[in-house]
This record gives sequence, structure tokens and C-alpha cells, in this order.
Amino acid sequence: MSGVRVAVIGLGAMGLPMAAHLAGEFPVTAFDVDAERRADAVSRGAAEATTPAGAAADADVVLLAVRDQQQVEAALFGPDGVASSLRPGAVVVLTSTVGPQAARDTAARLPDHRLVDAPVSGGPTRAGCGDLLVVVGADAEALAVAGPVLDRLASTCTVVGPNPGDGQALKAINQLLAGVHIAAAAEAVALARGIGLDPAAVVAALGKGAASSFVLSDRGPRMVEAYADGAEVRSRLDIFVKDMGIVSELARESRVPTPLASAAHQLYLLGEQAGLGAADDSAVVTVLSPKGR
Amino acid sequence: MSGVRVAVIGLGAMGLPMAAHLAGEFPVTAFDVDAERRADAVSRGAAEATTPAGAAADADVVLLAVRDQQQVEAALFGPDGVASSLRPGAVVVLTSTVGPQAARDTAARLPDHRLVDAPVSGGPTRAGCGDLLVVVGADAEALAVAGPVLDRLASTCTVVGPNPGDGQALKAINQLLAGVHIAAAAEAVALARGIGLDPAAVVAALGKGAASSFVLSDRGPRMVEAYADGAEVRSRLDIFVKDMGIVSELARESRVPTPLASAAHQLYLLGEQAGLGAADDSAVVTVLSPKGR
Repeated sequence: MSGVRVAVIGLGAMGLPMAAHLAGEFPVTAFDVDAERRADAVSRGAAEATTPAGAAADADVVLLAVRDQQQVEAALFGPDGVASSLRPGAVVVLTSTVGPQAARDTAARLPDHRLVDAPVSGGPTRAGCGDLLVVVGADAEALAVAGPVLDRLASTCTVVGPNPGDGQALKAINQLLAGVHIAAAAEAVALARGIGLDPAAVVAALGKGAASSFVLSDRGPRMVEAYADGAEVRSRLDIFVKDMGIVSELARESRVPTPLASAAHQLYLLGEQAGLGAADDSAVVTVLSPKGR
Repeated sequence: MSGVRVAVIGLGAMGLPMAAHLAGEFPVTAFDVDAERRADAVSRGAAEATTPAGAAADADVVLLAVRDQQQVEAALFGPDGVASSLRPGAVVVLTSTVGPQAARDTAARLPDHRLVDAPVSGGPTRAGCGDLLVVVGADAEALAVAGPVLDRLASTCTVVGPNPGDGQALKAINQLLAGVHIAAAAEAVALARGIGLDPAAVVAALGKGAASSFVLSDRGPRMVEAYADGAEVRSRLDIFVKDMGIVSELARESRVPTPLASAAHQLYLLGEQAGLGAADDSAVVTVLSPKGR
């Protein structure tokens, strides 16, 4: 085992498999507000802490894998937060997608420690086998500490720039494209169905030409399933409510019109209003053309 | 040379390379309203006709490669149109993207002949080497006549159904996705530029993950060029004004909401209003964030 001691805060769809995979190489102490998730982490090789401060107390690298900026703030600066127990020289790795400004603000509130801005993508399965894509904003000193942990998690690690927020900026552009592509695939499947084509055949036929995308190949078949039994939840719809909100805010601040990203954001909001927030994001297709119609 | 005699009507960006490639296997007679385009076709192995009727008079297969339904009607039913000289048993192959209803209407106006609905995609370079994607609506009898011609043009030929309009329906879904993906790539490049990232680096970094698409890899670098010298015209922007119009009409008729396709249509209209109709479609990025700003 390596000497780097790791704390993982947040044991959800991404945090739990990351904690388990990290525990194969490092001593890991894990925290989640949910005791059942903590027990899952223990069964997969981690030690348990009952507060963020407890998890971070001995750690060289504290990895945050929570849902949004509100949870980041609670984990770091709330009661028994990480900030209250962080050792000198320890670094905080932020894997959540929160937007550039939130990453910069968080770094500013940790003046005595370095923040590695490192939003991840790839989903739970890839999180469990070190096959994530990570886009990083961090300086060389922070990377010297956090590097072994990022290497364990990522198959592709792109350092965008030296500052917190740089990784979030690239991740936001990634989410703009992925979020629009999912909504476009939904429109394609719904319209194919509406004009009497077989959606599964359409997805297969268009998978290699000018219309092809990772999303069409990945979500297209799940959208077809959404009309049958519903697709297994691999990535929650409300993640894109949050992430397209980050995109919209960036676009507004930089005065760049993004009408498609805005329309996609509205579709995810409609999906959430329809009770699909915790469903697989492919369920957004049923907003456009409901099941049974 | 095969015994199938071919007429090609329309010698634009797609028609000219198709005529030249067909002339390598079949006797081809070519027509365009522009005498210079006809001379180009002659220099590439075709015979020339000065009217559509003249081109079609001896043909077994009449291939229409004109821009839109208005040109289809002029070529078939206008003065000296194809319909006035079409031989018994000859078939008309419609390679233009005009929408399902226009293809059905056209077939209905040719009661004594078969229409092969066969919209193509792939662009001029692939048109010149038999590497097109063709989606077909035609019955077995029509395909028996037109098959050798389609085989010469296409690397992938998908027969969607037996009726004219079936090929157009699938092509419309293809264009929905491609048109939205181009607009999404434009938003990604414009926003990356707006928040201070290097757009070329962003396009390269996102080319393999969840954000990847054929369009991002193909148009992304041309959008970066659009801010330098402007990209070479491979596919005109006003093609997507037409094709997203077809998508919008289909969506309206079938009562399926397609907010992203509509937003993309508006962006192409804005591009056309800005004088970019004949520019490469990647120039749509300059509508969102103008050159020099």
C-alpha cells in the first residue's frame, strides 16, 4: 500500500465506486451522511468516519464526491467539516461539477490549503475501475500530492490550467455538448416515433454517419427502453438540471448566446417537474412524447 | 460499360461528382441550367443535354440532384421537363432532401413511372468516389432498375421501406441530429472562447468522451478556422435552413415538440440573414460570437 492517506467524502453513485477502487491502493477513510452507504464502503475495503472532520483528520488527500456546491460547503465548512481538521500540507480534490466560480470561491475559503479542481466524468462503472476522464485545474505543487490519487482514478487526465476553476470550465463545455446531445437524441427518437419509423432501427441506422455521437449510441437504446420497462438508472436526470444551470450561468456572465443549451435546460426542468429527477436521464424522451401515446 | 443509361439532372456540389463517378460505369447524359457546369460534366466523361427532357429521353434511370423541391418540380414538370420525355419503364431517383410529403406528392404526379426516394449524405468528396450514405424508400421493382446506380454511388444503402417518403423520413431524423449537433458545437466553441479557454484545445480534449460526435470532430476545427481565414465551403449553411425547415414541418404535423431543432433552425436563419447562406455551415459560430470580438 502507498503511504498516501485518502479521505473520500460523499459515497453516492460516483463516490462509492471511487472509494472502493482507491482502497485497493491507499488507506481510505470514507464518510457519507447515510450510514448504509458508509457500511457499503467498509465492506469494500475502506475505514469509516462518522463526520467529514473525522474522515479528513489523518488524510493527505481529501476527495470530495458530493452532488453540488451546497453539499461541498456543508462538507468543508459545516459543523464537523473538513476545514476544521485538515492537516498542514493536505490537499482537497473537488471531483463534483459545481462551475468555475464556485471552485474559485471554495479555494479562496481554504487559504492555508491547496484545492485541486478535478471534475470527473464517465459514470459509476468506469469510476469503479479507474477509467474516468478527469479535467484538472491545479498547480504543480498540488498535483505532486494529489497526482497518485488522480492516476488511480483516471484513464485520461487533462490538466487545463494551474488554477481552481480551470477544470470546471472545460467540464462545463463538456456538459453543454453532452446535455444538448441527449436532448437531441430524445427529439430524434420522439420524432421518429411520431412519424411512424421504428426508433430502434433509426438509432441503429444513424449510429455511424453524420448524425453519430457517443450519446446517440449510449442513450438512444435506453430511450427506446424508456418506452418499454424504463432504463436502469446510470446517470440521474437531475444532474443535467444542475449542470445545464451551470452552463447557462457561464453563458450569461460571458454574454454568449446559447439557445440550444437553454432549450435543453428547460427540457430537463420539465423532466424534473414530471417526477423524473431521479430517473435515468434518457427518460427525458418521455417529456416530448409520453409513454402510451 | 453497363447497359443502364443514366441521366443526371443538377450538377451542383453533389450532382457533378455523382455524374462523374457514374460516368465511369454507365453512359451518362447530364443537365444543369448553368452551361459551365454542363461543360465540367462533359470534361469528366458525361454527354451533355440542354434540357431536362433531352437528358431523360434515352435514360433508364433519371437521377435528380437538385437543391430543393422547387427545383425538383421545375426539372420534372416545368417546360422541357423530364416528365415530358420519360421512357416506359424508366425510373426517377430523387437524391435531394425535400421531406416525406414532397416525395409522396412527386411520386403521385408520375403515375406511369416509379420514383425511388433516395436522399444521400456524405458531401462532395464522398460523392465523387462512391462512398455516400443513401436511405431509400422504394419497392423491389423500382430497385431492380435503379439498384446498379445506387450501388455505384453508395457505400451504405439502407432501404427504409417500400414507399416514396420512407427514405426522406429517415433523412429528416439524420438532419435533425446533424443540424442540432452543429449548432451545439458552435455554442461550445463560442462559449469556450467567451470564458477564455482555447477553442482548438477544447475541441481536441472533448473529441473522445461523452461530448464526442462526428460533427464535433468534423466541424469543430472548421469553426476555429472560421475565426481565422474562414473555412473552405464543404456544405453550405443554407442547406440547413432548408433541412431544419423540413424537420420543423414534420414535427409540427406529428405534434412532437422539438425545441432544440427549432432553436437550431433559428440560428441557421440568423446566419442566412447575416449573409452567410453560401458560407460553410461551420460559419454559424460567428452568429453567436462575432469575429474580432
